[in-house]
Amino acid sequence: MKLLKNTIEHIEDILTDPRGDIQKRFKAFAIPRGSLGRLEELATVYASIKDSVNFEINHKKIFTLAGDHGVVAEGVSAFPQQVTRQMVQNFLEGGAAINVLARHIGAKVIVVDCGIASHLEVQLFPDQRHGQCLKIKKIGLGTKNMAAGPAMSREEAVQSIEAGIELIEEELEDGLDIIGTGDMGIANTTPSSAILAVLGRMDVDLVTGRGTGLDEESFQRKIRVIKKAIDVNQPNPHDPIDVLAKVGGYEIGGIAGLCLGAARHRVPVVLDGFISTAGALIAHAIEPKVNKYLIASHVSAESGHRIMLKLLNKIPLLDLNMRLGEGTGAALGINLVESGVKLLNEMVTFSEAGVSEPHM
Amino acid sequence: MKLLKNTIEHIEDILTDPRGDIQKRFKAFAIPRGSLGRLEELATVYASIKDSVNFEINHKKIFTLAGDHGVVAEGVSAFPQQVTRQMVQNFLEGGAAINVLARHIGAKVIVVDCGIASHLEVQLFPDQRHGQCLKIKKIGLGTKNMAAGPAMSREEAVQSIEAGIELIEEELEDGLDIIGTGDMGIANTTPSSAILAVLGRMDVDLVTGRGTGLDEESFQRKIRVIKKAIDVNQPNPHDPIDVLAKVGGYEIGGIAGLCLGAARHRVPVVLDGFISTAGALIAHAIEPKVNKYLIASHVSAESGHRIMLKLLNKIPLLDLNMRLGEGTGAALGINLVESGVKLLNEMVTFSEAGVSEPHM
Repeated sequence: MKLLKNTIEHIEDILTDPRGDIQKRFKAFAIPRGSLGRLEELATVYASIKDSVNFEINHKKIFTLAGDHGVVAEGVSAFPQQVTRQMVQNFLEGGAAINVLARHIGAKVIVVDCGIASHLEVQLFPDQRHGQCLKIKKIGLGTKNMAAGPAMSREEAVQSIEAGIELIEEELEDGLDIIGTGDMGIANTTPSSAILAVLGRMDVDLVTGRGTGLDEESFQRKIRVIKKAIDVNQPNPHDPIDVLAKVGGYEIGGIAGLCLGAARHRVPVVLDGFISTAGALIAHAIEPKVNKYLIASHVSAESGHRIMLKLLNKIPLLDLNMRLGEGTGAALGINLVESGVKLLNEMVTFSEAGVSEPHM
Repeated sequence: MKLLKNTIEHIEDILTDPRGDIQKRFKAFAIPRGSLGRLEELATVYASIKDSVNFEINHKKIFTLAGDHGVVAEGVSAFPQQVTRQMVQNFLEGGAAINVLARHIGAKVIVVDCGIASHLEVQLFPDQRHGQCLKIKKIGLGTKNMAAGPAMSREEAVQSIEAGIELIEEELEDGLDIIGTGDMGIANTTPSSAILAVLGRMDVDLVTGRGTGLDEESFQRKIRVIKKAIDVNQPNPHDPIDVLAKVGGYEIGGIAGLCLGAARHRVPVVLDGFISTAGALIAHAIEPKVNKYLIASHVSAESGHRIMLKLLNKIPLLDLNMRLGEGTGAALGINLVESGVKLLNEMVTFSEAGVSEPHM
């Protein structure tokens, strides 16, 4: 609890472009005013978080947090639970979508076991060669079935958040300019919808989607299971840690911790999809100042994600009908942020280029 | 005319994934079906154009075509005409937005003088070192004022299209896996709106925007000028070359030629914004088969672009409120296409990864 408390206390409120330096630079560039649209906005957000206009993005890291969910027993996922572990192995071997996209944007993938239901039998792969590594932050062997009682204890919920904060602090030394969030956990759209329903005070039917591809019968069952979980546990919407404990997940707590830890160290966070944004909702409910450190990469095809983003007052950069998780949307988002930042760093001004300014 | 005719005759009608190979591969990947959304679509489009699932994207080239417009005399732009030439110089020195974004995505920028109003006094910059080069395909010293008569002769219109085709053919030898279109030309939203109004049979008020930032008075003048140009010239909507000649521009014709030439050689074309899409409209009106080779990178903030994309039946990948041109949107779009293609090339299957398949 000490790490979490200390982290929250040190999150600074960001002013957007406090001295107008960034706006001044964009105004001087040899382009029509405002013509770079959201790329200018991204550069401004990034520079405001760093409180500087002199920086390069060198260390990009995507944290793909994995955890299992006891609620899978209720038949809420199209995939069996062992897929969480199998996909972690796949991430470590470099053959998954997130590995491909991370290589494409020059980012490292940090795969984290936050609470897979079994112990991993993996060798550590050398980071440098493969662009990915494994970290163990295991809170438990999967959460309990939230339809029958709390998914985890309050202590575990705090531990899961602190695990995310630790991940940030461990990576700071090596260099951390921007992070992407990611998730892997069979059944984890179920707790994510539950979190949204509770924190957003919304109808479960409205915030529940088909996850990895449920048929109609299973989809209706999923809705009933989420309603039951909320009914059984009565999570307190004013207490985000209570919500996380009762209807959350280890990797979702970890993502909340990533957001808080990154904000505390002024590292911009590019959010992935539905599960990542559920983590961000928890973080935001714990400390609203975290919001300005968050960038929404894309809006997922999972219904409910659009609502989450509205609650956070974020407009996603991309709408590509993706719904994979892993951090795949975040990877594309980081690449766009980097585009904006490079424009800020590398473009020349009207006077440097000898270009005439507009006459109106 | 011979090159244009020959090019059109050789454009093949593409079948999307004719043997189902691409769909089969995506089905086998260790991801929930369809979860990569439009990245799967992009890979499918790319592979269908190449008629292969075995390829790499190595040679990415953005063609930034520059030309001047006599209609600038009517006061339809916020910038003076010499900015076209000055910006070409800036492109060659590597300090413009398109240079930054092209470096970011690993593409080369080919700057082309299609008809700047003056002769360039530039030295050629070594391609390899700077990532950009200049080509001269000068049709004339700027078009004539279309509000007083045709912007160019029919012969010049054909020449401008053939110049675009030549650009493709010249670059093929060096390697050309995907191209982006781009433009630079003070006042060129004016002919682009005129082309849209004529080919789309639309009201000028509906398809005219503020370009680089017109005030209300100049904006109203721009609308009147476009109406006058259409009235004076009576371009024939069934004859796209007539439309290009009477109310078009040299760089717009060049972009139409890029589309046709690329399609003829099965090279995917990533369109930039309003001016590029005006060129694509001309190309599509000349030969509708070209359509399947075109990918819309973004929707510009310039009103009218959304309408153009609808006419071409394209859904843009990005909506970032950009309106710069140069090829900046195309650069971001190429990067997304490459993401999709890399996923198709590098992901492993359920069986390769030892991941269990879904049970529904």
